[in-house]
Formats: sequence, C-alpha cells, structure tokens
Amino acid sequence: MKLMQRRIQSGFKYLLLTIFAVSICSVASAATHGSLPSWNDGPAKKAIIDFVSAVTKEGGKDYVAPAERIAVFDHDGTLWVEYPMYTQVLFAFERAKELAPQHPEWKTKQPFKALLAGDMKTVGASGMKGLMEILMATHSGMTAAEFEKEVSDWLATRQHPKLNRLYSESYYQPQVELLEYLRAHDFKTFIVSAGGIQFMRSVTERNYGIPPEQVVGSSVVSEFQMKDGKPVLVRQPKVDFVNDKAGKPVGIYEHIGRRPILAFGNSDSDMQMIEYTMAGEGRRLGLFVHHTDGKREFAYDRKSHVGTLDKALDQAASNGWIIVDMKKDWKQIFPSK
Amino acid sequence: MKLMQRRIQSGFKYLLLTIFAVSICSVASAATHGSLPSWNDGPAKKAIIDFVSAVTKEGGKDYVAPAERIAVFDHDGTLWVEYPMYTQVLFAFERAKELAPQHPEWKTKQPFKALLAGDMKTVGASGMKGLMEILMATHSGMTAAEFEKEVSDWLATRQHPKLNRLYSESYYQPQVELLEYLRAHDFKTFIVSAGGIQFMRSVTERNYGIPPEQVVGSSVVSEFQMKDGKPVLVRQPKVDFVNDKAGKPVGIYEHIGRRPILAFGNSDSDMQMIEYTMAGEGRRLGLFVHHTDGKREFAYDRKSHVGTLDKALDQAASNGWIIVDMKKDWKQIFPSK
Repeated sequence: MKLMQRRIQSGFKYLLLTIFAVSICSVASAATHGSLPSWNDGPAKKAIIDFVSAVTKEGGKDYVAPAERIAVFDHDGTLWVEYPMYTQVLFAFERAKELAPQHPEWKTKQPFKALLAGDMKTVGASGMKGLMEILMATHSGMTAAEFEKEVSDWLATRQHPKLNRLYSESYYQPQVELLEYLRAHDFKTFIVSAGGIQFMRSVTERNYGIPPEQVVGSSVVSEFQMKDGKPVLVRQPKVDFVNDKAGKPVGIYEHIGRRPILAFGNSDSDMQMIEYTMAGEGRRLGLFVHHTDGKREFAYDRKSHVGTLDKALDQAASNGWIIVDMKKDWKQIFPSK
Repeated sequence: MKLMQRRIQSGFKYLLLTIFAVSICSVASAATHGSLPSWNDGPAKKAIIDFVSAVTKEGGKDYVAPAERIAVFDHDGTLWVEYPMYTQVLFAFERAKELAPQHPEWKTKQPFKALLAGDMKTVGASGMKGLMEILMATHSGMTAAEFEKEVSDWLATRQHPKLNRLYSESYYQPQVELLEYLRAHDFKTFIVSAGGIQFMRSVTERNYGIPPEQVVGSSVVSEFQMKDGKPVLVRQPKVDFVNDKAGKPVGIYEHIGRRPILAFGNSDSDMQMIEYTMAGEGRRLGLFVHHTDGKREFAYDRKSHVGTLDKALDQAASNGWIIVDMKKDWKQIFPSK
C-alpha cells in the first residue's frame, strides 16, 4: 500500500510538473506569438489590440465568429520592401537580360533595346505598356513548374542594394508578428496584392506562414496541355486579372468570398480594398504602413514612384484609418539574422 | 499529512477521471468523424482508408506533410444531386420567368420566348449559347449581396421533384463523412466545380463544412462601384472564367496554387482535374461517383444529358481510378432528416 501511495504521489508529481511545463510553454508561446514584441506602444498597436479584443470577446457587442475573421494584407511595401523597385519588376528586368540571346529581335525593339542598354529612363518612358511587354516576355511561355523554379532560383541569390540582406528576406518582422497574433486569435490571414500570384507564392508560406491558397494576386492566362504525355499548365502571354486598386475588392469577392474585417495596405492603390473592408457591418479595422524611416528602411509617400501614399494620408483621419508610422511604431523592422 | 495524502489522491483520481473522459471523447469523435459509417465495406472504402493511412503515416514512404494534403471535389453529381437538371440551371430558368415582366423583349426573343412558353425542347436546341444567355440574364446586373440573397431565398424553398427534400439538402451523406474524415487527418478540402462560384458558396459551408475561400468555380466579371455612397460589387453579363474540363486544373493552379493529392469527380468533365492530380509525384488518389442507384437516387452514365460518365469509365482500370458504385458502396445516400 505504501509503495502504491508512493507511486501515486510520484505519478501526481509528474503530472503536476507536466502541467507546469505546459503552462510555461503557453506563456512562452504567448510572449512570442501574442504580444507584438517588435511593435512600440502607441496608438497603432493599441488600435490593433483593442480591435482584436473586441471582435474576439464572446458575448461582446463587436463579437465576430471565427469563420468571419478574415484579414487581408497587401504585399509590396506592406509585408516586404518595395523600394527602390518592386522585387518582381527587378526579376522581370533581370530575366529579360538573361533571355536576350534567345530574342535577337530585342536588339531593335523597345522597351527591350533600352533595357538591354541599361537606359532605364527610356524603359520608364515606355510606361505601363512597356512594362507589361517585359512582364509578359518573362512571365509566360513556360510551365507552372518551370516558372516556380526560375523565381525561386532568382530569389535565392538576389541581395537588396541597401539592406544587406536578400530581397526574399527583406520582409517586416512586426507584420509577421501581427499575422501570427491574428491567427492566434482565429483569424484567417490572406495576401491581396497587385503582385503576380505565382511569384508571391514562392515566399508567402516561408516568410509569413500564409499558404498558397490564401494568396490573391494578378495573373496571366494559363492553359492545360499534355507535354511528353504529362498534364502541365503553360503560362500564356496574356493578362488574366489585375488585382490592383478597384480590382482588389473583386479579387477578394472571387477568391475569398467574404468581406474582410481587417485590411492593411501602404498606398493609395489599397484604398478600395480598405474602403470595401470598412463598409461592412460591425467593427472593422483599416491600416496603412507609412514609410517614414529613411535610416532603417526608406522614407517616401506622396510623390514616390512606388507605393504612393497621398490621398489615403489625407483621408485617413476622417475615415478612421490607422496610419502606422514605421519609424515610431516599429521597434525592429527586419527579422534578426 | 494523512489529509494531505488524501487530497493528493483525490486530486489524482480527478485527473485520472478527466484523462479517461477526454479519451472517451476522442474515441467518440473518431467514431463519428473517422469511420465513414455511410460507406459499405468494399474496394472503394478500402482504397480511401489505405490512401489516407499511407499519406499520414509519419516516416512512411508515402508520407505527405499536412500543408500538402489538398483534396478537391467536384460539386454537381459528386457532392449533391444533379439529376434530372443541374440545380443552378433550374434556378436560372425560374429566375428568368420571374424577371420576364421587366423584359418585354423576351416575348419574341429566343431562347427566352421558348423558356417562357415551357418549350424546353427549343430551349435545349439553343445549346450552350442559349443557356449562357439565360445564365447571364439571371446571374448579372445586381450587386454581390443582392445575388446572394436571391440564391438563398430560392434554395430555401425549392423541392427536388423526386427526392422529397429540398434541392439544397439533396447532398450525399457519405461524402460529408469523407470530407470530415479527410479534415480529421489534416487534409484541406476544396470544391472545384463548373458551377458558379457564388451560387455554390450559398450552400458549401452549411452542407459540407467548406468555407467560401475553399470553393473554386466559374464566374462572371464583377466590377467595384460606389452605389449610394457605399462600395459594392456589381455582377456583369460577361463570363470571367469557366471552371470546367481543362479549366479545372487552371482553376486549381490559380486558386489553390498546389497540386491536389486526392480528387473526386463523377463525370468525364472531371477527367483533366483527376489526371492533373494523379500526375503529381508520390501517392495519389482519383475517384469517380458512378450513379448506379435508380431506386434511391438515379442511374445514369454513358449517355446522360448531365454528368456523362463514359470515357472515364473505360479508362478507370488502366489509370488506377476508383469507381465508387453508389448502389453498392453507399449504405445511406442522403442525410437523415
């Protein structure tokens, strides 16, 4: 009996220890995933925490069921660096140079001629039409698997000219924490960006824990074909959908099928997405990153060639949008190496 | 000390009881969600269970990580009844009749004239072109919210002519169990159908536990507009994407971004989706429902006007596709009322 008691006591002690260990782990996990450590205390962090508390409080007036907790994030400039050039555009330019030997006609055809000569002013002057030609030439004509490999190989080596880190790793640590924080509160997190959907998918799961099916973006038409007896998808030189500006709410409707309750952007191109989000019933949150940190990242807004934040800045206060000041609100910008 | 011991023992007993209760609950849950009660034992059920065991066995040669466990299901004829007419087509026909007073021109315009006169032979003879005209007339020109309400209101009352239950409730109980079984094994379940994406979303969450963002379907173009100062999406009379046949792998590529490891259809229109699924590396499973039960549901295959299962039947054995015989393999077809 005494032995039995000792065994029971020893078992009980073990259970207590286990429970204690589990509690410790939960606390540690909460500290990592739940408290936004790279966010400084301030109005932006407070607005986020207040919002999440309100919509997750069962029985509260702002309660939102987990299935309806949809959060959408723009990509370039919101989750990772877009300055001085969108990563995907740089990829297109570099790929065009690599592909040039297979396209002798580019020696005399604009904007390729200018691009190959490094005359970026002429490339810029070719406008959206010229850019689309370069994008189509580098983003189509291959299978889905081939394109995925090209993007991954390229991203694995390209360093950002200022940040001393890979482009693919130039993403914002506070946003990763915010995404984790939202998911820890049963939000489903999506990326909704003008970027190419398949280009983005090469980094979204690793960087942000967002699986490919939760990425909404622009696309080219793809075709199902048999190649060497195997079914493949071949990317065509034709725009399928542009998920930008007024296209973002459309992309959300088609892909997600539910109106988000939280939307986070960084430029005027995100206004429609945020308006659409805020116009739903019940409590909503709309946020913009304001790039104010010329030292640790870049400072740009109203007159920038990428990520222009102008009208949205003017309308933020009256619309109840939260402006996140990168310099003030973010303690750490990039993940530690 | 004795009191202390008694307390500890009592605490330990309580913990044991709790653990026991938790175990019981797990077992009960497994019985409900894990054993496919409406499936008869046979080669189809065995193939499913063997496949799921193999891909979820850690360290096994066929192991697939949870993030890659994508399962796709066709809708009409695979998850719910499609006979004698696709539910969505019936909706379009009935809506057209309701809308006729607003369209006096339909009195003389085919296929509307024939439809209003109940001359289904002429409607049928108008082919895909005529059908698309009726679909566009009834699926566009309203906001997303208005369309959602029209579909829900209609589905809430329409009885299936033979089955003595609502169309919206004419779905297959064995498939609901299979979807739950897959999700219990960390699969992510999607619908990939030629049906209208927004039409389907009105039932997918309630019937199958599949949220709107996991539904892939055909769509019309939608436009973001301001209406009475509110941002809305207005459905346009223009086809955006047809998620059928060779369109299904494309829809999967765009929407899911990962090749499924399990695909379930019921007609030749699902062949490309299943070929695409099976062509991936590692273990895969492709299945077709064969409608063999004229008594409890309907019996049709090679020469049917809906859900034609012909080539797929011929190729099943050589391609390793599983044919699910509704009469033999399904103990119960519809959910109990």
